[in-house]
Amino acid sequence: MSKNPVIEVINFGDELLVGIRENSHLVYLGDQLARYGLPIQRSRVITDEKGEIQRAFLDAWEHSDIVITTGGLGPTADDMTRENIAEALGTELAYDATIFEAIEARFQLMGRKMSSHHEKQCYRFADGEVLHNERGTAPGLLLRRDGKLLIMLPGPTHELRPMFEQQIIPILQQRGVLAEEEAYVQLRTCGVGESAVEERLQPLVAKHPGLTVAFCVHFGIVDVRLSSRDGLLPLEQIKQIAGEARDLLGEDFVCYGHCSLAHVIYRELRALDRTLAVAESCTGGLLCNAFTNIPGSSKVFVGGVVCYANDVKVSKVGVPESILEQHGAVSPECAVAMASGISERLSADYGLSVTGFAGPEGGNARNPVGTIHLGYHSPVGVWAKTVRYTGGRLDVKTRAVHAALDWVRRKLRQHKVEEFLCGNEGR
Amino acid sequence: MSKNPVIEVINFGDELLVGIRENSHLVYLGDQLARYGLPIQRSRVITDEKGEIQRAFLDAWEHSDIVITTGGLGPTADDMTRENIAEALGTELAYDATIFEAIEARFQLMGRKMSSHHEKQCYRFADGEVLHNERGTAPGLLLRRDGKLLIMLPGPTHELRPMFEQQIIPILQQRGVLAEEEAYVQLRTCGVGESAVEERLQPLVAKHPGLTVAFCVHFGIVDVRLSSRDGLLPLEQIKQIAGEARDLLGEDFVCYGHCSLAHVIYRELRALDRTLAVAESCTGGLLCNAFTNIPGSSKVFVGGVVCYANDVKVSKVGVPESILEQHGAVSPECAVAMASGISERLSADYGLSVTGFAGPEGGNARNPVGTIHLGYHSPVGVWAKTVRYTGGRLDVKTRAVHAALDWVRRKLRQHKVEEFLCGNEGR
Repeated sequence: MSKNPVIEVINFGDELLVGIRENSHLVYLGDQLARYGLPIQRSRVITDEKGEIQRAFLDAWEHSDIVITTGGLGPTADDMTRENIAEALGTELAYDATIFEAIEARFQLMGRKMSSHHEKQCYRFADGEVLHNERGTAPGLLLRRDGKLLIMLPGPTHELRPMFEQQIIPILQQRGVLAEEEAYVQLRTCGVGESAVEERLQPLVAKHPGLTVAFCVHFGIVDVRLSSRDGLLPLEQIKQIAGEARDLLGEDFVCYGHCSLAHVIYRELRALDRTLAVAESCTGGLLCNAFTNIPGSSKVFVGGVVCYANDVKVSKVGVPESILEQHGAVSPECAVAMASGISERLSADYGLSVTGFAGPEGGNARNPVGTIHLGYHSPVGVWAKTVRYTGGRLDVKTRAVHAALDWVRRKLRQHKVEEFLCGNEGR
Repeated sequence: MSKNPVIEVINFGDELLVGIRENSHLVYLGDQLARYGLPIQRSRVITDEKGEIQRAFLDAWEHSDIVITTGGLGPTADDMTRENIAEALGTELAYDATIFEAIEARFQLMGRKMSSHHEKQCYRFADGEVLHNERGTAPGLLLRRDGKLLIMLPGPTHELRPMFEQQIIPILQQRGVLAEEEAYVQLRTCGVGESAVEERLQPLVAKHPGLTVAFCVHFGIVDVRLSSRDGLLPLEQIKQIAGEARDLLGEDFVCYGHCSLAHVIYRELRALDRTLAVAESCTGGLLCNAFTNIPGSSKVFVGGVVCYANDVKVSKVGVPESILEQHGAVSPECAVAMASGISERLSADYGLSVTGFAGPEGGNARNPVGTIHLGYHSPVGVWAKTVRYTGGRLDVKTRAVHAALDWVRRKLRQHKVEEFLCGNEGR
C-alpha cells in the first residue's frame, strides 16, 4: 500500500438518508483518521439494497486502497451486507465457531438463550479475519486482498468506536499508513472572526511552505488546525509553528486542543482556589450547564439561579427593585446587580450574569432582540458588557453563553498579567 | 421522469471528511424530501478535486434522475465545482448579467465595492437556469437535460435552506415527484424502548400492507414515522392509522410531530394557567434550559435554581438540613424537599427537581453513578421517582432531563383523566 492510501467510508443505513439521524460515524472516523494524518478521501451513504450495495462497493473497492463500511451486520433478515459484499468480491462466507462462542457467551452472561437469528452473524469471509466485538453480537470483518484492506464495522456507536480504536488503528499504524501520534495541532480561539484569524496567521503560511491550516467555526469559537497534508513538515515543527500561532493570536487564544471555555475558567479558578456562582435570565440554564458538564465542577461552581421572572431576580438574586424600575431587567445595571447579588447570596468569590432578549419575542428600541448584557463580579472589581447577536433563539442563547465565558476568561487572564506586573514592580 | 425518481445528493467539502463538521445538509435535505414522499437514494461526500468531482458526478448523473449538489460555488479560486461539472457535462458556461447585478446590488447595500473575485460566480450553464440567492453572493444553478435535473446549491446553511424551500420544492412538486403535503406522520413516544414500541405497533403492520414504519431513538425518546414508501396508502389513510397507533401506544404517546417534552408540559400548564419552577443538581441547568428554549416560556416557567452545593440546597431551595443529614443530597427525600421547596420559594404552582450522580465521579453503594432521583410537587400532591442510567456524564444528564419531563407529562395527563372521571361522576 502506498504511503498515502486512498480511504473511503461507506455508511449503510436508510435513516441517514431521510433526515432521521446525523452521520456521526463519518465525523468520528474522519476525526480519528485525520488526527493520525490520513484524511478520508470520499464517503457515501447508501440504502440496504443488494444492487446498490454491490455497485457502490465495487466502485469504492476499485478506486480506493482502504474501504471502511459501517452498519448492516445485524442479525435480522434484512441485514444482507455481509452476503452481498461477499458475492460482489466473489468470495465465500465461512462459518466461524469463535464468533458463535462469543455470541453464546454474551447471551449466557445476560441470562438469556441465544436466538437462531444470530447464526447468520457467525460467518466471516473465507479468506478474511474476524474483528471481535466486546459490546455487541455483530463481529466486524476484515479482508486483506491485493494490498487493499476491507474493514466492516457494526453500526452501534458504542460497539464501533472501541473496535476502531483498539483494533483498526493499530493495524493501520503497523502498515505505516497512520502516524504513531496525532498529526495536527489544534488552537482554539474565541471572540474573533474566521477571516480575522486567517489574516492573523497569514505570516505563518507564507513562512512555512507545506503548512495546512483548516478552520472550524462554531458560535463564536474558531478552531484552527495546523497540519502538513503532504507530510513535508514533521509534527515537532508543527508544534513549534503552533507556538508562533499562539503568539500571533494573543489573548484571542483560548487553549490547545478541544477544551471548553468553561473548562478553561474552571482550571483558572481551581488553581486560585476560588468559587463561582451564576445568575442567568435569557440563557435560561445553558450557562450553568456549561460548568456542570465538567466532571468534578462542584469544586468551583457552587450553583446558579435561572431568574426568568423579575420577582425571582429580586427575591433570589438580590437585584434592588429600584434598578428594575429605573433601568429595566435588560440593562447593564441589572446585569451588574445580578452578578454581585448572586456571588453574595451563594457565598461565591465570583459572580457571572446574563440578561437580555433571546427572541423571537421581546426587545425594545434601546435593546432590540438579540441584545445581551453581561455582568461580572470579582474580588478585584465589577464590570458590565453588552453584546448583540442576530439569529434564532437557540443560536442567540449559545452565542451569549460563549460571549460570557470568553469575557470571564479574558478578565481572569488580564488580572493574572496585572498581578504578575505588580509583583515585578514590587521587587 | 418516473413517479419514483432516483435522487442523489453530493456534498462537496473537505471539512466533512476530517471530522470537523457534521453533514447537516444531508440531514436537512433528507428530512425535507422524505416529508414529501421522496427519500434520498444515496449520497456521497467528496473532496474538491477535479478528478474526484468529475468521476463522482458522472457516476451519479448516470444512475440518478435528480442530482443535488451542495457547496463549492464560492468566489475563491479553489471553488471550481461549477467549471468541473460543466466540463464533465460537455457544456459551456455563459456569463449572466442578472447574477452580476444581484451581487453588485448586495455589495451596494452593505456599502462595499464588489470585488473582482465574484466575477466567476456570474456564470451559469449555457443551457441552464439561475437559482437566485437572497442571502449570499453564490447563486444556485439548475440544469434540465434528458428528463433529468441537476440542482446545485451554495454551501452556507442560511442560504441553502430558503433556496431549497422556496425554489426547489415547488419545482419538484410541479414535476409531480414531490407530494403537495407532508407524506408521513410522526408520533413521538417516551419512556419505552424501541423494540417495545415496534411490538406494540405490530398489529398495524400486519393489518395494513404497504405501511412503512421507521424509528428514531434519542435519549429515551422514540419517534415513529408512518408512511407508505411504495405509495400504496394515501396520506389520509396514514393519518387514520396514526390514530390507531396512538391508541395502541396509550400514555407512552407524547405528541404528533416534533414538539419537545418541555413544550408539551408548557402547553398543558398554559391551558391551566399554572406556573412551574425547577430545582436541579446533577442536570446542572439542562432542565431549565429545556423550558427556556420555548419562546414565551416565561408565561409558565418562573425560574430555577441550580443547587450544586448543599449550602445552596438549604439556603436557596429550602431543603431542611435534617434531610441532608439523614438521607443525603442524592435521595428521594431530598428530591421531594427540593420540589416542594422551590415551588414555595419561587411562588410557583408546580415544582420539579432532579438530584443524582451524573458521573464519572461520586456515587455510593446505595446510589451508584447514574442514579437519579426526581421530585414533583403539584397542587394535588407530591411524589418522588428514581431512575438509573449508564453512559457518560452528558448522556446521563440528557436522559435524566427527559425522564423528569416525561414523568411530569404523565402525571399531568393522569390528573386530567382523574379530573375528567371525577367530573363525570359528579353529574
